[in-house]
Amino acid sequence: MSAHPPVVHTVDAIRTLVMQARAAGRRVGVVPTMGALHAGHVSLVEASNRECDVTVVTIFVNPTQFGPKEDFAKYPRTLEADLERLAGHRVDAVFAPLNEEMYPAGFSTYVEPPQAAALWDGVCRPGHFRGVVTVVLKLFQAVPADAAFFGHKDYQQSVVIRRMVQDLNVPIEIRVMPTVREPDGLAMSSRNVYLSPEERQRALALSRSLHLIEQLAEQGERDAVSLRQRMVATLEAGGVDRIDYATIVDPETLVELNELTGPAVALIAAHVGGTRLIDNCRLGPSSRK
Amino acid sequence: MSAHPPVVHTVDAIRTLVMQARAAGRRVGVVPTMGALHAGHVSLVEASNRECDVTVVTIFVNPTQFGPKEDFAKYPRTLEADLERLAGHRVDAVFAPLNEEMYPAGFSTYVEPPQAAALWDGVCRPGHFRGVVTVVLKLFQAVPADAAFFGHKDYQQSVVIRRMVQDLNVPIEIRVMPTVREPDGLAMSSRNVYLSPEERQRALALSRSLHLIEQLAEQGERDAVSLRQRMVATLEAGGVDRIDYATIVDPETLVELNELTGPAVALIAAHVGGTRLIDNCRLGPSSRK
Repeated sequence: MSAHPPVVHTVDAIRTLVMQARAAGRRVGVVPTMGALHAGHVSLVEASNRECDVTVVTIFVNPTQFGPKEDFAKYPRTLEADLERLAGHRVDAVFAPLNEEMYPAGFSTYVEPPQAAALWDGVCRPGHFRGVVTVVLKLFQAVPADAAFFGHKDYQQSVVIRRMVQDLNVPIEIRVMPTVREPDGLAMSSRNVYLSPEERQRALALSRSLHLIEQLAEQGERDAVSLRQRMVATLEAGGVDRIDYATIVDPETLVELNELTGPAVALIAAHVGGTRLIDNCRLGPSSRK
Repeated sequence: MSAHPPVVHTVDAIRTLVMQARAAGRRVGVVPTMGALHAGHVSLVEASNRECDVTVVTIFVNPTQFGPKEDFAKYPRTLEADLERLAGHRVDAVFAPLNEEMYPAGFSTYVEPPQAAALWDGVCRPGHFRGVVTVVLKLFQAVPADAAFFGHKDYQQSVVIRRMVQDLNVPIEIRVMPTVREPDGLAMSSRNVYLSPEERQRALALSRSLHLIEQLAEQGERDAVSLRQRMVATLEAGGVDRIDYATIVDPETLVELNELTGPAVALIAAHVGGTRLIDNCRLGPSSRK
């Protein structure tokens, strides 16, 4: 068993640690997570290790980004296993605050997210992005790193955070790294543990439908309406229980496209059993997953 | 004529300057202003000079904190005179961004202010504090100083900013310095230039009514309802044209008090001619203006 990375619970302690590293001329990367770490998170740690001298992982299941009927209570909390998983990697500190440290009594200031937060998950999960940008801004103040690493799987989140950081002049670079997938294509997610073996099979419809339209786009299909229909048909044939959205959007504004004339992103949110899954892929000229 | 302090127009330039000073171990103070500098602002510069090694003054007439019917267009913009006024003091840089630098196309992220912003000026000036905390957070990211200096005259603003900084973990100390007054008692304000000589006389009703209840409180009056009535009567006798509020509140929550049992703050907002004026004073045990 390797040694655990040091765990820090207070804002003051993690900030001091980061400021000292930066004062010593070291580049600091931060990987914000809600724990329940999987290979996707580990790839973000590896990216930070490549680009920075010091890596901080934050683990905080942020209550303000869950809706009242969502899975905050049952979201997996696996700190010991998370520390084990990080033990094989270079992590200089884990910041794992309690709720009371992040949201003390009387807390009442929020960040109102940018326009791109009003679409898609912003419609399906009211208040979700307000909670996300609020906690991410707080984490960036507590952990004043040079760069922060997020996964492409949460594509809308990455667009919203990038714009928030730009609008509010937060001095941090946002790096978005490729989605990590299971061998059969399922995008890594902490919520995959909710899936029964049978649901796990049906969940493959998301990556399968994205892979299909990626190929069609590469073969020259430019009609986004037709591509959307193919995504929906594939999701339904694969047996997902409900589709929140399956769309093709502008990579920056997230506005739905009817024609592929440049870079685009296909976004899916769908329910399999009681589990809501999301996935996406890039389409068009600089197509990459 | 003394030399002007250097004027910097971009976020990148001022941030670099501040980061270099801090890396060299120097304590940095920032004085955020909307220009039209008067003796109150100068006292903030002097406070920063006393407590810090480097002082940055920001000058930006922030459009997002003005209502559609307010005085954004006519608010005094006097950069040359402001620089002259600062020339006799130790100011290491003036950050004077253009609107396009602070609010580029597509800007759409705001800070939703804390609870204390819902009262008083929050009622009279809808959206005002949202604009204030948004621009102040942006300025604190652009000018990552150790301490920021604000005037007690904008008392509710200081409470709102202090809470925003605490809630969002912004690593800056908020210092609130005493209100500076004209010899006859009028609180210094950039908006005083709007007053005609006759209005200027009537405007004294604000400080006079505060001074009166301060004396009554010192003499032992604990009935805040009665003190409020005396404030209103004094304002009306002095000829103000409209009272937005005249109240006595808890210093932290800004909730109205009916009895003085501890520290309290008397707050006034009133119109004289076309000009809206605010003033306040502390009451109770640790009474100071």
